[in-house]
Amino acid sequence: MKLPGQEEFEVSGSCENVPTGEMDSVAGSDPSPDGPLDTDSRDLRVPKDPLLFIQLNELLGWPQVLEWRETGRWVLFEEKLEVGAGRWSTPHVPTLALPSLQKLRSLLAKGLVLLDCPAQSLLELVEQVTGVEWLSPELRGQLKALLLQTPQHLIQSTGTSPCQGSAQPREASHDEEAPLKEQHQNPLKRKLPPEAEAGAVLAGELGFLAQPLGVFVRLQEPVVLGPLIEVLLPSRFFCLLLGPPTLGRSYREMGRAVAVLLSDPQFQWSVRRASSLHDLLAALDAFLEEVTVLPPGRWDPTARIPPPKRLPAENKRLPSQLREAKSPSAQRGALAEDRHGRGPHIPNPELQRTGRLFGGLVQDVCRKASWYPSDFSDALHPQCFSAVLYIYLATVTNAITFGGLLGEATDGAQGLLESFLGTAVAGATFCLMAGQPLTILSSTGPVLVFERLLFSFSRDHSLDYLPFRLWVGIWVATFCLVLVATEASVLVRYFTRFTEEGFCALISLIFIYDAVGKMLNLTRAYPIQRPGSPAYGCLCQYPDLGGNESQWTSTKPKDRDDILSMDLGLVNASLLPPPECARRGGHSRGPGCDMVPDIAFFSILLFLISFLFATALKHVKTSRFFPSVVSVISLSVGQNWLLASSPVCKWKGVQKEGDGGLSLTKCPPCGQVRKVLGDFSSVLAILLGCGLDAYLGLATPKLMVPREFKPTLPGRGWLVSPFGTNPWWLSVAAVLPALLLSILIFMDQQITAVILNHAKYRLQKGAGFHLDLFCVAVLMLLTSALGLPWYVSATVISLAHMDSLRRESRARAPGEAPSFLGIREQRLTGLVVFILTGTSIFLAPVLKYIPMPVLYGIFLYMGVGAISSIQLTKRVQLLLMPAKHQPDLLLLRHVPLSRVHLFTAIQLACLGLLWIIKSTPAAIIFPLMLLGLVGIRKALEWVFSPRELFWLDELMSEKERSIPEKGLEPEYSLSGSDSEDVFTPEVVLWFNCQMLSHLENWNSGAGLEGSWPRPQSPA
Amino acid sequence: MKLPGQEEFEVSGSCENVPTGEMDSVAGSDPSPDGPLDTDSRDLRVPKDPLLFIQLNELLGWPQVLEWRETGRWVLFEEKLEVGAGRWSTPHVPTLALPSLQKLRSLLAKGLVLLDCPAQSLLELVEQVTGVEWLSPELRGQLKALLLQTPQHLIQSTGTSPCQGSAQPREASHDEEAPLKEQHQNPLKRKLPPEAEAGAVLAGELGFLAQPLGVFVRLQEPVVLGPLIEVLLPSRFFCLLLGPPTLGRSYREMGRAVAVLLSDPQFQWSVRRASSLHDLLAALDAFLEEVTVLPPGRWDPTARIPPPKRLPAENKRLPSQLREAKSPSAQRGALAEDRHGRGPHIPNPELQRTGRLFGGLVQDVCRKASWYPSDFSDALHPQCFSAVLYIYLATVTNAITFGGLLGEATDGAQGLLESFLGTAVAGATFCLMAGQPLTILSSTGPVLVFERLLFSFSRDHSLDYLPFRLWVGIWVATFCLVLVATEASVLVRYFTRFTEEGFCALISLIFIYDAVGKMLNLTRAYPIQRPGSPAYGCLCQYPDLGGNESQWTSTKPKDRDDILSMDLGLVNASLLPPPECARRGGHSRGPGCDMVPDIAFFSILLFLISFLFATALKHVKTSRFFPSVVSVISLSVGQNWLLASSPVCKWKGVQKEGDGGLSLTKCPPCGQVRKVLGDFSSVLAILLGCGLDAYLGLATPKLMVPREFKPTLPGRGWLVSPFGTNPWWLSVAAVLPALLLSILIFMDQQITAVILNHAKYRLQKGAGFHLDLFCVAVLMLLTSALGLPWYVSATVISLAHMDSLRRESRARAPGEAPSFLGIREQRLTGLVVFILTGTSIFLAPVLKYIPMPVLYGIFLYMGVGAISSIQLTKRVQLLLMPAKHQPDLLLLRHVPLSRVHLFTAIQLACLGLLWIIKSTPAAIIFPLMLLGLVGIRKALEWVFSPRELFWLDELMSEKERSIPEKGLEPEYSLSGSDSEDVFTPEVVLWFNCQMLSHLENWNSGAGLEGSWPRPQSPA
Repeated sequence: MKLPGQEEFEVSGSCENVPTGEMDSVAGSDPSPDGPLDTDSRDLRVPKDPLLFIQLNELLGWPQVLEWRETGRWVLFEEKLEVGAGRWSTPHVPTLALPSLQKLRSLLAKGLVLLDCPAQSLLELVEQVTGVEWLSPELRGQLKALLLQTPQHLIQSTGTSPCQGSAQPREASHDEEAPLKEQHQNPLKRKLPPEAEAGAVLAGELGFLAQPLGVFVRLQEPVVLGPLIEVLLPSRFFCLLLGPPTLGRSYREMGRAVAVLLSDPQFQWSVRRASSLHDLLAALDAFLEEVTVLPPGRWDPTARIPPPKRLPAENKRLPSQLREAKSPSAQRGALAEDRHGRGPHIPNPELQRTGRLFGGLVQDVCRKASWYPSDFSDALHPQCFSAVLYIYLATVTNAITFGGLLGEATDGAQGLLESFLGTAVAGATFCLMAGQPLTILSSTGPVLVFERLLFSFSRDHSLDYLPFRLWVGIWVATFCLVLVATEASVLVRYFTRFTEEGFCALISLIFIYDAVGKMLNLTRAYPIQRPGSPAYGCLCQYPDLGGNESQWTSTKPKDRDDILSMDLGLVNASLLPPPECARRGGHSRGPGCDMVPDIAFFSILLFLISFLFATALKHVKTSRFFPSVVSVISLSVGQNWLLASSPVCKWKGVQKEGDGGLSLTKCPPCGQVRKVLGDFSSVLAILLGCGLDAYLGLATPKLMVPREFKPTLPGRGWLVSPFGTNPWWLSVAAVLPALLLSILIFMDQQITAVILNHAKYRLQKGAGFHLDLFCVAVLMLLTSALGLPWYVSATVISLAHMDSLRRESRARAPGEAPSFLGIREQRLTGLVVFILTGTSIFLAPVLKYIPMPVLYGIFLYMGVGAISSIQLTKRVQLLLMPAKHQPDLLLLRHVPLSRVHLFTAIQLACLGLLWIIKSTPAAIIFPLMLLGLVGIRKALEWVFSPRELFWLDELMSEKERSIPEKGLEPEYSLSGSDSEDVFTPEVVLWFNCQMLSHLENWNSGAGLEGSWPRPQSPA
Repeated sequence: MKLPGQEEFEVSGSCENVPTGEMDSVAGSDPSPDGPLDTDSRDLRVPKDPLLFIQLNELLGWPQVLEWRETGRWVLFEEKLEVGAGRWSTPHVPTLALPSLQKLRSLLAKGLVLLDCPAQSLLELVEQVTGVEWLSPELRGQLKALLLQTPQHLIQSTGTSPCQGSAQPREASHDEEAPLKEQHQNPLKRKLPPEAEAGAVLAGELGFLAQPLGVFVRLQEPVVLGPLIEVLLPSRFFCLLLGPPTLGRSYREMGRAVAVLLSDPQFQWSVRRASSLHDLLAALDAFLEEVTVLPPGRWDPTARIPPPKRLPAENKRLPSQLREAKSPSAQRGALAEDRHGRGPHIPNPELQRTGRLFGGLVQDVCRKASWYPSDFSDALHPQCFSAVLYIYLATVTNAITFGGLLGEATDGAQGLLESFLGTAVAGATFCLMAGQPLTILSSTGPVLVFERLLFSFSRDHSLDYLPFRLWVGIWVATFCLVLVATEASVLVRYFTRFTEEGFCALISLIFIYDAVGKMLNLTRAYPIQRPGSPAYGCLCQYPDLGGNESQWTSTKPKDRDDILSMDLGLVNASLLPPPECARRGGHSRGPGCDMVPDIAFFSILLFLISFLFATALKHVKTSRFFPSVVSVISLSVGQNWLLASSPVCKWKGVQKEGDGGLSLTKCPPCGQVRKVLGDFSSVLAILLGCGLDAYLGLATPKLMVPREFKPTLPGRGWLVSPFGTNPWWLSVAAVLPALLLSILIFMDQQITAVILNHAKYRLQKGAGFHLDLFCVAVLMLLTSALGLPWYVSATVISLAHMDSLRRESRARAPGEAPSFLGIREQRLTGLVVFILTGTSIFLAPVLKYIPMPVLYGIFLYMGVGAISSIQLTKRVQLLLMPAKHQPDLLLLRHVPLSRVHLFTAIQLACLGLLWIIKSTPAAIIFPLMLLGLVGIRKALEWVFSPRELFWLDELMSEKERSIPEKGLEPEYSLSGSDSEDVFTPEVVLWFNCQMLSHLENWNSGAGLEGSWPRPQSPA
């Protein structure tokens, strides 16, 4: 037999020649040709065989009343029948005892092996199986009757007593072959692909047998074996292991061993193609070669291992020769890697330089055009609705924040309305045209700082700001177009994790700082009343000029304060509260009039509650609770509660049937409840905050959007005049600031683009760096001409946007973990967000109920979410942990801790420097510092070895698409992957090439930083 | 060779006869007698062999520069050298490939096996090891030189580069035998017991060997083999596996296999006693019989399995015959258990009825007397300090709460001072005298309710309350003494988990309800200012009677409010704030004068912060962070930061040494930081709350303790007169309420005692149910006579007390999890708490800075802690989870989910009923309802089968001391224990007996509730 990976399929042509005799091959006889093979399985990868559902039916009750009972089942993992509890166990990694495998081997070697058995029904199969010569006719009859007996299945829903109808014992009916009703209704069927096949394993003690009976059958065509399998699937394999009870329970264990063997893809592959007993045993031996052995003293064999997050990849199970060649040399190859080389660097297709003017742009447009229709059709999912709400609120809050800041920074030359209009126009245009429509455009901190500096400059030199700004914008657009034309965006390949993380951390920190800062500003605006502060008094003073005195004192004679007023001898004053006073035309006077008590602490409460609630809801997605909100609801409904909290969370219509049981009807999307709660976490948190605020009715600061559509600066039209009062040469001098701004725009835009197009998000439709920059340039021109703010990609909101559009697989087989599939890449959510932003001017009556502290809380949530998504955060945490307690990160297995800390420290230092520059008058050189970040990263190549940088600072290359989140993934080694994980054959090959070409360095020891010093050679 | 459990040591007498020849036994030659045996190892349990530290030295560099490097080490788990990172991996369960074990077996079978080798040094050992006939003299010389070469060790501290001194390559010195400096300094030495021995495994590829060389040596006496082992330990075993490089890296894997084998206790036991190669191979085969096998397709062999929480118990590894006999029949035995029987019921010695009057009390006193001295000496631990602070604050808060409530309930007949005094006197007396001094006495909710009813009754019938109460107390004390005399406390064996949990949940819910309720009361006392509420005005009115007007208006002419006053034409009023106004003799008038703004929300914030902070700090204990607070501090200190954040969290003095390296000095208790933070969580939370409150300086309600020492009711002395104005027959009529109160006191006291003396706390000094009740009775008399409140054990505070005194083992071997050892059982913490409570009257100036909301937060924390410690809570959570997501609880493996839910529902219904009764006028029958709880539990025996109750409602028996926290323990199956865990041999034996005696039931199917219905027998 060949190994799967090297299979040449020389027998696959003989499909039609398979003999269809009664018994294809018996143990020891000549091997017959292979069974039918998929014709499309000729490629070198292991071909995809149908999924196998394996069931163990155990014979129980000897010597009294014999019965078959399903006590185990396997798809990917093992599920065991908990007899006492009457439920299936949680899926777990099957563990075997070595002796059971060995006993199985010897039993099969002596037993009956039928490959390509042509039986068409259970009856025919039983006929064949019992054709062992040493069985007396009487025994054979008894055995046949036993094998035709209907086994007991536990269909999942029987966990709760009222539903046990479907597990009621079935009296032996006349037609043993007819599938049972519960087989049809088994919900497991929906979890299995339609082409799935079954394997039946029957094992147990049978006292009237004189010697053990082992039969292994591969059916020529899969056949539905009556009620043998709990799901209505055609069976491909059948295995019978019976014998006298002397061996204790080892038949059960041997049955489990067969089932585990069949659930192993490699063994299954081999045994589907086996042509003789010899092949079968060889496959078993190959399995034994590869098993993992746990020592008995350190591992309780009865402990259940939960399914690993990721299964070992098929292609990792290389033939042992290849495996042995790989590891030590590959490790050394890694050591010997080119010291200043850039590693396996095959750039993205979208980042390959075409060499033609605007070549990259043209390529981007062509690539994106093909996806354009699907960019709208892919948005038809309820998740998008949540994303729109969430991002809309974030965008509006951002527009208000930056609008306010901008109005402050430019002394009213731009304001809230410009911010809304600009956000809507620029954002919508970008979402319609750009290469990466998941990007959310926004005013960003660095650009705002630049604008503030520009305004100060023009005010100090008495320049007309908006025309000057227009020229800066024209120049920036020109420079950006030049960058697009020269395909400068391919330089983003130098933006490694180091740059990305530095920038992302900075922007996230600004977000967090702003959110907290604004909260503290609120507490300053609404000061806390300390006992000593003399802010109690406030009187309502009447207008001196002849108001009718009775108007003030006698309109409400029963009012306590009016009585007091008279009481106290107040003549032209009253104790009416300020709003009431103003309504009646008076003036509130006194130190306590401006005081709005309780607002400060209530705002803090709202802020904390919305942040914590959004964070908590986010985690609901991965918790065990809430999915059965349905069951909670039904709990209150009444007597049905026991039904609804049943094992499968299925809504069971209470349809009484003839046998008193209950049938299963399809469950409404109750499994989705948790997911929806997670997806809508921020929206729900905002709603909670608004509800709480409305309930208490305090005068917290609310979201205020502009209501009138006209420029904030009085007396200007929408179009900015090109010169205004400025001299003509200023349009040329604007080149200088434009140069700096161009660097800033390029860096800000492209680093964000790199972060968003990161391989870990598994984007299918690709990036469009050139097209994005082109769009930004065009919008620069437009916004400058209209006097609107400038826009580039906003890192944090865009990340939040993508995060709200994550797609995850639903688990299929029991125990299989859901995996991240990618992002819903489409243009619609962004578009709707910006259209809504534009129309927000008309939504003011609704939006005014949203308290600002709640939105600040959501800002904090976004900032914390963004900063905790980067590896830098995890490495900073490492600084605070003693090595003993550090998680088992891949990174730490390959790079000395001190080097990791050094890298983190350098990143933190850069971050600190950027923060300082941003906050001081030196902010004008901030764009240059961003460039400097790339330079520092280059300089790091003299400090760190390429191997270290490979782990610490992944390069943006095609390679990483196959190695998601390198360096951090196996946070706990139980997640199933390990150091060898990244050593895919390609990587090994590359390392080996590197090793060969740098053998001189290796020998001289030059390439061996971090390796072990060598002692003297032995005498 | 015999199995360890059956060993009869027939050769152990021959210790002196062991020959000391050059070579005791060579493979294939006659077996020599056993090596020296411990004489105290003759008992039937597996004798304790010394712990073995095993090290794998790998030969690297062939064919270039050969060097030995330590690449793996084992104590309990495996630690692997991460070559790239230069650190030891996290300890993990070792996994092996099956072929390496098989290859090892065949290599050893052909190789050289020296048992009881008399070598006294590495040189002698090398001489013996290289004595293989097929080695040529030249090869032998080369091999000797190679084996004497100093290996490279990675001493732990070298993870950070500045400390790499100790891992500097050692030049081959003249004296190969002398231990290295770093061996002496290895911190690992401190983690190993002094009697530990070492095993050295040397493996690798050596090209000049023509054939594989396998040598296994057991040294007669453990010998320090020079620098071979990184820790300075005498070696007992030595294994050499070398060979030509054709086999790839299999020598390394074979070396790992030897190491794993040696680290297995059973194999080690066998090989220490092996007398021939045959024994060695038999031990290996026995190991193989027991290994756990993981299938390759479902488990990545390179994944690292974290150490299980509990290791498989040695006695679980029974010989296979015993094991096979045990399981299926034992399971059926469990099914066949006596239907109404009470299970394995061997009562605690303290609950065995003596049959003599006061026999139990005498027994309790005798038993407790022997522990009395240690009850004080055991308190000498810093943890006790934290416990005192925590419980003191809880007790004082409780005293204030109940004092206030009592004052309200009795119309001032008792008050705050009585509460303080009574708590101090009763608590301290109880701590000094009682059987379970960990108990904290307190007024409890049920008793308070009773007292309120008693007071209403005496007020309604114009009785003198305190004398009436005195008679009730006298009668209760009498009844209690009768209960003590008749040893009624043995009835607590009927208090099962059902009763305990119902009561504990009720008390915890009352705690939580009270904490939240008091917070809401606060917000009512300090109302929130809504915009509409007309509470702005407050004027300071001058006394009408001729105050000097200038005193009011002109003393501070610059005051803004005074200017305003004049401004507004205020004649005899000013806007001074109320305190200032009062100081100057005026009256504040107006609706806004009573308003204290901001207090409500600030109180809520304080409440939440103290609760969340205490909860978070509690979890610090199990987190990965903070232990290296030391490293954070040193981070700021300066350049030492890289040192301090080094792998072992060792404070390294920067002592420059000759070779430029750094030596290790002992670490201050930095590993304890985390533990201290956890232990002091509540105290720290209180301090944080106080700090925050003091910083803002708001007038939050503070803790107020009484300052004067006299009865609250004016005009009474300390002693209550026996009759007062009551008729004489009232002293007899008091029997009736006393009867109810006696039931209440007995139940309240004894259920709490049962909860506190639960087996899961692993108390060493035993309970004292009779003595406790005696103390309560005596204190009842005392408090009634002095007119102080009545006291019984307080569940929640006592649980908090015990929780703050938990002892946990420090992990020894790498990867070993710390285990719960028990509680610091002593009398001192309680005593100090109550003495402090008594002196609190003098501590008022300090205590007045503690805001009440903070204490309410701590109450909430205590209530939540108590309620989440009971199984009921976990079962209620199960109600909210679909079965698929439920944790893998033992309970759920053995009891159908619907039965679990039914049990939970009944418990919840009982809880609801108790709550309703407690809150309504029917509260007087509350004591009877507590008794009813026991009755309901008895009735449950007709609803649930004994097997179900065995899992759902453990019985209080001696058995459970060996089965801690049955039913819930293996929350995740990875924790290492499983269903078979509870089937200790004794349990199995008992089940089997039960099965035999009830075989009739079994056959008729009567004892088979919950089992599977049987189909018709086959035709």
